[in-house]
Amino acid sequence: MTRPLKLILGTVSALALAQGAAASELRERAQDMFAPLPSTIPALNDNILTEEKVDLGKALFFDPRMSASGVFSCNSCHNLATGGDDNMETSIGHAWQKGPRNSPTVLNAVFNDAQFWDGRAADLAEQAKGPVQAGVEMANTPDNVVATLNSMPQYVEWFEASFPDVAAPVSFDNFAKAIEAYEATLITPAPFDAWLNGDDGALSDTQVAGLELFIDKGCSACHNGVNLGGNGYYPFGLIEKPGADVLPPDDRGRFAVTETADDSYVFRAAPLRNIDQTAPYFHSGKVWDLKVAVQIMGTSQLGTEINDAEADQIVAFLGALTGKMPEVVYPVLPAETLKTPRPTGEVQ
Amino acid sequence: MTRPLKLILGTVSALALAQGAAASELRERAQDMFAPLPSTIPALNDNILTEEKVDLGKALFFDPRMSASGVFSCNSCHNLATGGDDNMETSIGHAWQKGPRNSPTVLNAVFNDAQFWDGRAADLAEQAKGPVQAGVEMANTPDNVVATLNSMPQYVEWFEASFPDVAAPVSFDNFAKAIEAYEATLITPAPFDAWLNGDDGALSDTQVAGLELFIDKGCSACHNGVNLGGNGYYPFGLIEKPGADVLPPDDRGRFAVTETADDSYVFRAAPLRNIDQTAPYFHSGKVWDLKVAVQIMGTSQLGTEINDAEADQIVAFLGALTGKMPEVVYPVLPAETLKTPRPTGEVQ
Repeated sequence: MTRPLKLILGTVSALALAQGAAASELRERAQDMFAPLPSTIPALNDNILTEEKVDLGKALFFDPRMSASGVFSCNSCHNLATGGDDNMETSIGHAWQKGPRNSPTVLNAVFNDAQFWDGRAADLAEQAKGPVQAGVEMANTPDNVVATLNSMPQYVEWFEASFPDVAAPVSFDNFAKAIEAYEATLITPAPFDAWLNGDDGALSDTQVAGLELFIDKGCSACHNGVNLGGNGYYPFGLIEKPGADVLPPDDRGRFAVTETADDSYVFRAAPLRNIDQTAPYFHSGKVWDLKVAVQIMGTSQLGTEINDAEADQIVAFLGALTGKMPEVVYPVLPAETLKTPRPTGEVQ
Repeated sequence: MTRPLKLILGTVSALALAQGAAASELRERAQDMFAPLPSTIPALNDNILTEEKVDLGKALFFDPRMSASGVFSCNSCHNLATGGDDNMETSIGHAWQKGPRNSPTVLNAVFNDAQFWDGRAADLAEQAKGPVQAGVEMANTPDNVVATLNSMPQYVEWFEASFPDVAAPVSFDNFAKAIEAYEATLITPAPFDAWLNGDDGALSDTQVAGLELFIDKGCSACHNGVNLGGNGYYPFGLIEKPGADVLPPDDRGRFAVTETADDSYVFRAAPLRNIDQTAPYFHSGKVWDLKVAVQIMGTSQLGTEINDAEADQIVAFLGALTGKMPEVVYPVLPAETLKTPRPTGEVQ
């Protein structure tokens, strides 16, 4: 009775060893192209993180009075309850206008090399100044934002505590820096991080198979780094242009930033963390099924058919990028005063 | 040197005693007409409160996918960050339409005898069904709400856990009950509660003087009970009708509910807790200054001029009704699936 048992144990051990070796080899390949989230909040350019500043940034992030109408806050289109985006093709903004592109998630956005689908903002502070001024989004002006903030003594105190060494702490620049500071804390460690850090059990077999396909098919050529994307620009339709239903001809992407013909229909490779929480997909928001999005990427970017079974595995792997949200205590905001500019839903 | 000191101490003691007696007498008068918030969450009609149900209700309260467009949640117009309302004259809703009346605060609303400015909903569960279906607010239908909820397995599980003994837990009725359960927890104990409960130091001298005026002028004839209002109906302009700028002639208030001529321009007396956080005022939202609102009440409801000094004291007292918000952890909502009805900003 003992020998067969030993034999079985021996076989299991050999299998486990072989699997372990394969996992180890795959991890080494993966570590060459991806990186786990760091365990601490990254340092920002010219923006020291303090608790006061992060708290202020959270208040501003959730404050609808930062929009002209009083309807929209940053959180409206980058909703922390729903994956850091708004689950629409393109966002609805001021006076019910539609934005031109799908709202990207704010989660882990601090790790993107640049912000927006066309990378036109170098960092989150620069990004934060965009939507607040965009006529189809929050439709506000820097002067009106500052007047709104200055009208509420509690906000003035918070700015003074957050920017202690400056003459005029309440400014549009500091508004953006505080929001950047808060957004830098919105980091969501995922099973894939645990796996990259050495925990074999963090991914299922299907997810591991999906990861191998993700690498072998070439997805990781563009979707790599900490965010599996967000760090490079590529033509949408590198091999074969998708139809106008997915790639509307009037949005030429990065061309509008660089005015270089080569940048026509060039977009930032989408960062893929929490991707299964942030349908619909692509800058156009025209694709609702993540599996379909994966298959479109195969034909348009890689010139390869990704079959149903493969796409299912890749989607399973992408699920391992969905992380744990930090706990967000909803802020209590300062009350308006008689000096606070009145909200207006009018188109200026 | 000792005798003068004793004398001073004696004087102080006599003064303190006299003040104590006055405070005690005023407290007795106040306790006859007002009541402090209870220390526990009130029982609801046919709706047992459980932790699961309250958590579900919070998720629903914050979920913008309960609106047709995906833009508005309950929290949009009853924002827990800004006093439980939206700081607008009247709310902006679906397709940028304007609602007819100022959004009342959800805070402590469970203590109102009925909901809405005209009291047309008996309780918060009935109230919760209104805005979600109103064409100018969330513009959704019960069927679409239920389809949206059923499309997300996590929501189905939450409903099963919240309504364990029913055949079809996911229903529009239970959607409303869960929201009611959550809203019942939104109670904000204020300095005035501490004072009613016996803490003389909870109100400043000015606030005590304001309270006396509030009673003596007759404000408390309509604004009494736990919420200092929310429990009776009165004609706006009982003594003298305010101008059309404050009382627009086309909104006849409770007349639309009862179709009784006597109810023309009759509204529910506004509950006054957190009133200094919820400008602008009245059902029309046309008055932004609380002091002006107090003075309008004097002439229109009481037939008396409330002078500036008196109004300042009453406003100081009303500030003692601003309470401490419960800590709200922002929910993480279930992700949509391919079965989730798509958001639409169109007017149906």
